[in-house]
Amino acid sequence: MRAQLERVSDELRRIVSADFPLITEVNEHLLQMRGKMFRPTLTLLASEVEETPQPRVTTMAAVVELLHLATLVHDDAVDHSALRRGMPTVNSVFSHQISVIMGDYLYSRALATLVTEGDMEPVRILTEVSTQMSMGEMRQLAALDRLSFGEDEYFALNRGKTASLLSGACEIGALCGALRYRAVLARYGELLGMAFQVADDLLDYTEVTAVIGKPSGLDLRERKVTLPLIAALRTMRTPARARVERLFAQEEPDDASIAEVVAIVAEHGGIEYARRRGELFADEAEETLQGLPDSAARNALSDAITYVMERRW
Amino acid sequence: MRAQLERVSDELRRIVSADFPLITEVNEHLLQMRGKMFRPTLTLLASEVEETPQPRVTTMAAVVELLHLATLVHDDAVDHSALRRGMPTVNSVFSHQISVIMGDYLYSRALATLVTEGDMEPVRILTEVSTQMSMGEMRQLAALDRLSFGEDEYFALNRGKTASLLSGACEIGALCGALRYRAVLARYGELLGMAFQVADDLLDYTEVTAVIGKPSGLDLRERKVTLPLIAALRTMRTPARARVERLFAQEEPDDASIAEVVAIVAEHGGIEYARRRGELFADEAEETLQGLPDSAARNALSDAITYVMERRW
Repeated sequence: MRAQLERVSDELRRIVSADFPLITEVNEHLLQMRGKMFRPTLTLLASEVEETPQPRVTTMAAVVELLHLATLVHDDAVDHSALRRGMPTVNSVFSHQISVIMGDYLYSRALATLVTEGDMEPVRILTEVSTQMSMGEMRQLAALDRLSFGEDEYFALNRGKTASLLSGACEIGALCGALRYRAVLARYGELLGMAFQVADDLLDYTEVTAVIGKPSGLDLRERKVTLPLIAALRTMRTPARARVERLFAQEEPDDASIAEVVAIVAEHGGIEYARRRGELFADEAEETLQGLPDSAARNALSDAITYVMERRW
Repeated sequence: MRAQLERVSDELRRIVSADFPLITEVNEHLLQMRGKMFRPTLTLLASEVEETPQPRVTTMAAVVELLHLATLVHDDAVDHSALRRGMPTVNSVFSHQISVIMGDYLYSRALATLVTEGDMEPVRILTEVSTQMSMGEMRQLAALDRLSFGEDEYFALNRGKTASLLSGACEIGALCGALRYRAVLARYGELLGMAFQVADDLLDYTEVTAVIGKPSGLDLRERKVTLPLIAALRTMRTPARARVERLFAQEEPDDASIAEVVAIVAEHGGIEYARRRGELFADEAEETLQGLPDSAARNALSDAITYVMERRW
């Protein structure tokens, strides 16, 4: 798998290269920021569940990662984030302007590359994913500061923002060697993505960070409503709810308020609820895999669920 | 033509509609901002040069306008512009974040719609156009503040930023009824776009604005180097050049410096040179039309050149 991912990286590098110095510079920075290539790994695995994958899977996997990179660049621009995966973001190293334009460039290159391959289906999948992702981002903005933000809206947000691309990554893999399992793999990817996002949001409430010695509460700091809070609010009485409202009324919530609300959410079962809900998605993803032939790839896809739940991506 | 453009507008409205209130709100604002639909007009005309156009041309023309709108939304976000066509921009009415995400949404919807039509060629054309446009935007950023910015770089910038979409608009029209003339129409669109951008940049030096009674010099205000200045710099001696350099050293150039440099550019033949260069592109575009059969559409495409040169779009 490592050798295959190396080839995907080389392909990525080839796709984004341009005869223009500024683009080359930004690309080099981006390729250094590259993470663990979780999405292209899913594409490669999905392509292997039945028979020998088609050679084009390397390009497809690179395009999937490229679409992911394009959205990260725009997300960081939108959020004015300074760091991503411990590295300075494009908007902080270069400029806000460059990150908006560069995201557009990466996205166009991703699609133009798919077009060159000549098959409409991957283009169909990724333009649809991309529509879903931008709608997810819109839902995210509409979710800020809103204590009335509900569980259904939360899941719709996650489906767009996270699950659509994981689903697309698996579905495109299926097109490259496991066409019969296209629907199963797309469904697996979606459920995996739903589990992924719940696990990610939970961490904000549970992971004791090295520096401050308590949960980061970053989402609360940004007044972002996620599942633990949504669940806890359902059983809160007036005094507890008033403390949550006080935090949401602050422009920049202080550490004490955040620690207090994290504790309130835990006491009202929000963390427990979100954990169970995440496990439900993980179990459903696991069940979906039963629809695939027994293979090393299927086992690896099963491991990916564990990986996501233990948040080691 | 007016009735056809109405149908294109209806189609545009259908494509961008979404079951999400925030998107609906932004769309309504955008559709009010809609300009004279110059690009979809080119698509419609190109489709009519030989025979009856295919019905899908309405959708294709709407997608062309949609891609244009997506780039305007991102341009305004990048430039932090407050007004566009006399209307407040998306970033000023909603937010910067919304305009970045909304541009992504519009672009994804444009491509997803083309995919639904089932023909790969229009998808190929517009993903290529979109790559060229984002590279043009990058060149634009690299052009700021650089008196060494040359004529070749300037034309490469215009080819990406402006001419690529006008070319694509015509080429996609050709696919809907004049396939034999695809290359001719693509070439015509490119030359028209090159003339368009030169004429646009000239206006900054020549058009006496109603409010201040002299040329706006907006590009100079933003320290953007365009053809009149590039040409004039070639014949400037040290004292004149020093005055230009002084303007470019100012964070926010004052009105007196701008008026002075506009006069210097005129004295050194920059305006005259740009005018002649623009006319050359216009003449070439006209010659290209000789490759088309005599038709009402060809005459209208010829009128479009005049329209562009007199800047009445």
